Amino acid sequence: MLSRTRISELANKLEQEVRINGWVKRLRRVGKKLLFMEVADDTGHVQLVFYGAHLPAKCPLESAIAAWGKVVEQDGRVEIQVSSFEILSAAIEELPFVVNTERIDANIKQILDYRSFSLRNAYVRSIFKIQGGILKAYRAFLRSQGFNEIKTPKLVAGATESGASVFKIDYFGQAACLAQSPQFYKQMMVGSGLERVFEVGPVFRAESHNTARHINEYTSLDVEMGFIESIEDLMTLEENLLNYILITLNQDFAAELKLLNVYPLPVLKIPRLTLAEARNILIAEYGHVMEALDIDPQGEKLICQYVEAKYGSRAVFLTEYPLDVRPFYTMPHRTIPGVTNSFDLIFKGVEITTGGQRIHQYDLLLERALAAQIDPASIESYLAVFKLGMPPHGGFAIGLERLTAQLLGIDNIKMATLFPRDQQRLTP
Amino acid sequence: MLSRTRISELANKLEQEVRINGWVKRLRRVGKKLLFMEVADDTGHVQLVFYGAHLPAKCPLESAIAAWGKVVEQDGRVEIQVSSFEILSAAIEELPFVVNTERIDANIKQILDYRSFSLRNAYVRSIFKIQGGILKAYRAFLRSQGFNEIKTPKLVAGATESGASVFKIDYFGQAACLAQSPQFYKQMMVGSGLERVFEVGPVFRAESHNTARHINEYTSLDVEMGFIESIEDLMTLEENLLNYILITLNQDFAAELKLLNVYPLPVLKIPRLTLAEARNILIAEYGHVMEALDIDPQGEKLICQYVEAKYGSRAVFLTEYPLDVRPFYTMPHRTIPGVTNSFDLIFKGVEITTGGQRIHQYDLLLERALAAQIDPASIESYLAVFKLGMPPHGGFAIGLERLTAQLLGIDNIKMATLFPRDQQRLTP
Repeated sequence: MLSRTRISELANKLEQEVRINGWVKRLRRVGKKLLFMEVADDTGHVQLVFYGAHLPAKCPLESAIAAWGKVVEQDGRVEIQVSSFEILSAAIEELPFVVNTERIDANIKQILDYRSFSLRNAYVRSIFKIQGGILKAYRAFLRSQGFNEIKTPKLVAGATESGASVFKIDYFGQAACLAQSPQFYKQMMVGSGLERVFEVGPVFRAESHNTARHINEYTSLDVEMGFIESIEDLMTLEENLLNYILITLNQDFAAELKLLNVYPLPVLKIPRLTLAEARNILIAEYGHVMEALDIDPQGEKLICQYVEAKYGSRAVFLTEYPLDVRPFYTMPHRTIPGVTNSFDLIFKGVEITTGGQRIHQYDLLLERALAAQIDPASIESYLAVFKLGMPPHGGFAIGLERLTAQLLGIDNIKMATLFPRDQQRLTP
Repeated sequence: MLSRTRISELANKLEQEVRINGWVKRLRRVGKKLLFMEVADDTGHVQLVFYGAHLPAKCPLESAIAAWGKVVEQDGRVEIQVSSFEILSAAIEELPFVVNTERIDANIKQILDYRSFSLRNAYVRSIFKIQGGILKAYRAFLRSQGFNEIKTPKLVAGATESGASVFKIDYFGQAACLAQSPQFYKQMMVGSGLERVFEVGPVFRAESHNTARHINEYTSLDVEMGFIESIEDLMTLEENLLNYILITLNQDFAAELKLLNVYPLPVLKIPRLTLAEARNILIAEYGHVMEALDIDPQGEKLICQYVEAKYGSRAVFLTEYPLDVRPFYTMPHRTIPGVTNSFDLIFKGVEITTGGQRIHQYDLLLERALAAQIDPASIESYLAVFKLGMPPHGGFAIGLERLTAQLLGIDNIKMATLFPRDQQRLTP
């Protein structure tokens, strides 16, 4: 038995006998003695040519097959003259929808209900090939900067942060919940001496949003760094990180990016505005008044329009968020009362990152926790770390699915999530 | 202001002025005018030398500091002549336990209660530096073999597999639970055309075990591969994967492995025995009778003793587990009734992997689900995939923390878990 050759490797096997595997994408019969079959595996496409006796009687599209034969070149293309053929697993005749076209012929509900099948479409699959590439590049860049990968628990006692609602769990009779973020843990790991840490893991938000940019479980790309001097260190780190990701994607996923019509991804040079500056710009330029302390979704869109026109940038860092819209552990600004050393990154009209410097002084942290009506006993093991030489530090988190959607120009975050969770959707 | 130099880079900065950061590990005063201070950051240790006026009045061990000064060589070692010094965050005088010795001077409860502080000890930190290296090598090897990284949801409807108990959640009024494994999802992603997939993610087991080798949340390293011919493909893949990890750790973490007294990690050549063969060997060699269908913990220890003596191997694949101790989706053996195409990997007396070929035929899968009293409606979107050209496939999962513990000779899995969860422990 020949061991398997992947389709991308066929060009190196000219005139050799091979076995390939894949899925049937197209069939074309020419008279009774000739059949052309296009087959794809994860690495590419190839045409199989069947003559006479080797012709399969019936082979539904999308069936999983094995074929044996000789690799030949025909009109500058590699193809296989089939000598033996087997249907490993036949697809039903009535497929849920058509996937062997460039764009998928299905609506979002169908795509998500048949998530596995929708990935047979090259356009849909490209999104997730690129998402895998984001993960790889994210980790590679951070390791190159001396960051350590950590894994922290998702089952936690009490709420991780104030604010967002949590999913509650009965943990052997104790009250527990699902982590909304690894915030406390990544800070503790900076204080552990690991200094620079990152984590890729799920986070859970029991929020009743029902929008194209919210899901209730997502993958958070968390970064936390010790011995920073200011949030400038963090914004520079994130800008370099994002550009490393963009450049790597352009190199490794050019075909997929082209299929999605976003090749090449332009490198970012990200201006930095305070929230107060943004507030003034929105009024002056667009007559848009921010009603709340924080910027609203419409404001996010407009401020991105502004920086695109003025600086040619698709992204902007907004800084100096008010104390009242940031978690208690956020470092207050040194001189401006009521303001924090924090930032958001708005990318193509949508917030993809929240970050900031954290308080490292025990007394100040305790004071801010009490002001936020948090019982110090409930965060005792977190607070204890701040008595043991906690350096100045800060970090940020990027939502993987939202970053994917924004990078690729995808309207709905659920299209950039393999198996999205929203209030209606818990399966597949 | 000088930007920061990490301690490992000081040798390249001889005679230059630098700023370093770190934690105070040791102090030695010589008279009133001279102080030697050992400082560590995540990259190494260095001695700071203070003369006269620069002497800090008081500086508790483990405080986070910044120091400025000139890099000099003294007796073949690099040190810093301090010109300026700042305590960024003082540690309390009464530390929880001593960490600046080679072995940590604390029991497991103290180590876990003060997890962040315990990592200030080089021995403890080495465990997690190596764990990060395992993750990196695991992903690098699988990518080199054409595997795609996926992220699948941890909030699921119903139980992922039969068997182990689950943590239940109220998901906006719907009954949900935490995933015990990404089993169904990774199979669906093989069927999606991604063909070869891996995932690193948390899994949750609501089991009331209370042993040195169980925790209730752990990191699962999952692998699933399409178009396999038999479980031999999977065992070969896993053997190559583990050896790649071992070789990479020996290269990248020699210092840490030496500190843990396990350098170099020996490469594995893993013999394969059927469970029936193991049963006979245990009786013949040790008079040990397996009471159940599955091998028991004592049997796992003894069979490892046997293969170590006979084959010089610390690990063994056991194959052909009975149908009754495997999940319903496990592929039955082609010729031996009541037996499956499945395997476990026993490493140094402990099972670290369960794997096997999965059923890819819709009719057989449905039959086996019904035999296991699973309602087909409850796994509808999973079953649907098997009508759409599902290739022969299989895979395995490795518990990261258990693998770490077994590789490094650590008795208790909780020592190889940053923030372990057991029935008693939900914090920190």
